[in-house]
Amino acid sequence: MYKIVLLRHGESTWNKENRFTGWTDVDLTEKGVEEARAAGRLLRERGFSFDRAFTSVLKRANKTLNLVLEELDQLWLPVEHSWRLNERHYGALQGLDKAETAAKYGDEQVLLWRRSYDVPPPPLPEGDPRITADDPRYWDLPKAEFPRTECLKDTVARFVPYWQTVIVPRILAGERILIAAHGNSLRALIKYLDEVSDQDIVGLNIPTAQPLVYELDESCRPLKSYYLADEETIKAQQAAVAAQGRAKK
Amino acid sequence: MYKIVLLRHGESTWNKENRFTGWTDVDLTEKGVEEARAAGRLLRERGFSFDRAFTSVLKRANKTLNLVLEELDQLWLPVEHSWRLNERHYGALQGLDKAETAAKYGDEQVLLWRRSYDVPPPPLPEGDPRITADDPRYWDLPKAEFPRTECLKDTVARFVPYWQTVIVPRILAGERILIAAHGNSLRALIKYLDEVSDQDIVGLNIPTAQPLVYELDESCRPLKSYYLADEETIKAQQAAVAAQGRAKK
Repeated sequence: MYKIVLLRHGESTWNKENRFTGWTDVDLTEKGVEEARAAGRLLRERGFSFDRAFTSVLKRANKTLNLVLEELDQLWLPVEHSWRLNERHYGALQGLDKAETAAKYGDEQVLLWRRSYDVPPPPLPEGDPRITADDPRYWDLPKAEFPRTECLKDTVARFVPYWQTVIVPRILAGERILIAAHGNSLRALIKYLDEVSDQDIVGLNIPTAQPLVYELDESCRPLKSYYLADEETIKAQQAAVAAQGRAKK
Repeated sequence: MYKIVLLRHGESTWNKENRFTGWTDVDLTEKGVEEARAAGRLLRERGFSFDRAFTSVLKRANKTLNLVLEELDQLWLPVEHSWRLNERHYGALQGLDKAETAAKYGDEQVLLWRRSYDVPPPPLPEGDPRITADDPRYWDLPKAEFPRTECLKDTVARFVPYWQTVIVPRILAGERILIAAHGNSLRALIKYLDEVSDQDIVGLNIPTAQPLVYELDESCRPLKSYYLADEETIKAQQAAVAAQGRAKK
């Protein structure tokens, strides 16, 4: 039996401002830094330590990971970065305020863009400066394939091959793995692992900086999963995430 | 022509207390954190960016590196950790106050232990709890070879093979490399690169958190080297390092 930990980054500046972030490389807020440290302390208190970590190429996840590793006294841990763990690309919505977008397009359309499995938001226009295909962190992503928008199905399609070919072999080799990523890239992984239906994934919300343990069988299929924090804390945070896309009353 | 940057970590708690540190895993001081951030800003202002970083398995170097990468907006950079970049192991002197040790053994003996090429300090005794050979960060160091003391010659003997087999191939592949390490592991590398004599290496001091650029030819032999900071700043810091081992007057 194997045990891995999934962790969404702490609060980012755009989480706080309620804006669509996607691949925009925003920083953690002070609260986000504190959340990350608390996650590290919680892992330490529960006796966790790791052999390797995987993360995205976005600083809010990288910094969350470094703060967790500092609390675990494991700053020396091997870390692998890949854009395949990035947040879902939010297309032309990136940078827009969620409540304003909801007021303009309606709650229903925004909920569809945020949570539907296969409806991508409008793409970034050709030539948009946010299409940073030359950035060296995307060296292994062919320029023509640099995303201009993604639905969750697209995120699953680029994360799962990495899970299967890079992460699973490490788990099977006996390494204890920590994955520090994003709300929607983790939803993508969980959809695959737990075989969540296209309908049910809409209602699945992941709180920031709460260690989520998956116990896996010898084929890396889930036996069970649970948050380390108590149920009430998690439920309150999940409700807050779910409420973010609604227009302000 | 290739260009790499060497960086000693910022001030550590035991630098500040003037104690022999070696493989003891002490943290940065607040000043050390500030020094690391300043090094990152200096590199950014001078237009540096990197493709890969190498560091030790000790947190004062790891944290210095993370702070530099944060200032460079390159937290996503691939980083490789190895004990072969660790500080020189200081044997039974680890934890002792440098001035007290000098008062006890005499300035000359301490200068010999600190700076001579092939005279190791007294080793840790058998069974000393500081022989942490089971620590997973030393997984690739055979237990029987876990050092109990080192002279600089020993540090050269374990760092240079890593330089030759792991770092040089990356440089020759065109990667821009940053090495975040320690006073004596960097002295070991510089002795090898610049073919410094066993006598002259005694007088070579490396200031904390000052980016040191090496320009290398197509065989990775040095063409020239220079600090990014102005000469006066460097000289004042080097004099302070040289004075650390003397008894307090």
